[in-house]
Amino acid sequence: MEHYSRQMEALMEELGKLPGIGRKTAGRLTYHLMNQPEEAVEALAGALVAARKNVRFCRCCCTLTDQELCPICRSDNRDRSLIMVVENPRDLAAYERTGRYQGLYHVLHGVISPALGVGPSDIRLKELMQRLQEEAVREVIIATGSTLEGETTAMYISQLLKPGGILVSRIASGVPVGGDLEYIDEITLYRALEGRRAL
Amino acid sequence: MEHYSRQMEALMEELGKLPGIGRKTAGRLTYHLMNQPEEAVEALAGALVAARKNVRFCRCCCTLTDQELCPICRSDNRDRSLIMVVENPRDLAAYERTGRYQGLYHVLHGVISPALGVGPSDIRLKELMQRLQEEAVREVIIATGSTLEGETTAMYISQLLKPGGILVSRIASGVPVGGDLEYIDEITLYRALEGRRAL
Repeated sequence: MEHYSRQMEALMEELGKLPGIGRKTAGRLTYHLMNQPEEAVEALAGALVAARKNVRFCRCCCTLTDQELCPICRSDNRDRSLIMVVENPRDLAAYERTGRYQGLYHVLHGVISPALGVGPSDIRLKELMQRLQEEAVREVIIATGSTLEGETTAMYISQLLKPGGILVSRIASGVPVGGDLEYIDEITLYRALEGRRAL
Repeated sequence: MEHYSRQMEALMEELGKLPGIGRKTAGRLTYHLMNQPEEAVEALAGALVAARKNVRFCRCCCTLTDQELCPICRSDNRDRSLIMVVENPRDLAAYERTGRYQGLYHVLHGVISPALGVGPSDIRLKELMQRLQEEAVREVIIATGSTLEGETTAMYISQLLKPGGILVSRIASGVPVGGDLEYIDEITLYRALEGRRAL
């Protein structure tokens, strides 16, 4: 028997489809939203529709944006000879938050994963190759994750680009800043040792 | 500098206002939603607006519903002489999930909390008193939480109702079913001892 209203049940079901939101959280969110002013709920609904309606891939770096070129590709203050290859727009956002990277990006929207049937043609590699032909790029920094798939993808891209004479680099693997060695896995510790630098 | 689109940033901000959803989760949800079909996002937005627009308090038990009377108050299969007083519609839903309670409910929409400045007139107690005058009620079960505020509210209601000669009861406090004694706090253990029953 339904104890809320049919519409609240429908909302709970919709919210429950979101990743990481189970039945209980959906109930809690629905209850919260029912106690908000109608305008606040309408603002959320409007933001949802507007964002989804206008989202597209940046013509240059393939990140998600609402214009032909994303704000980073449009900017005059970025080093256009440097491209960082990331898995998805959230990884781009993470590097932007550091405030230290001044180059451009290229968003793959995935990683090569034979287990999941994702091959090189399923991610935005073709677009990267095209950019490298059209633009004067000095260095490509591969910043895919240090998972098996991320490493595989990094390897694949590096072998693809090296014949072209472009400098290809990979972000460092090692101990996170503030990380307590005791709690860090063996592979990371080994990588940190392998990647040691003279002081 | 914004790295997504303005509309995605706006959506992230709206999602970040929800309880338990921080900046990172909002980003993850936004990214997920941008990868969903447009119709799916519109369905969520529509559910939000429809639910909020039509939500109201049940004229009888004060739970949230979209009709004058909620499905439980409208039902012919419930024992109308029994009223369970709960803090909010989620607690009502929790008891409904047990499938074992056949009476009606009364939703207070809060608890008395002197610390937060919530007095008896700020919760739906007046509506409960009115119901008790109009209907033939045999027993009122107080099912507010076993927090300090929940207990205070239970006490207050019981003192209010006792002169009227209605049986007032309180749900049992004790060890949760399947609970390992080792991990249960002292107050709960004491309550379980105090509330022991002969076998």
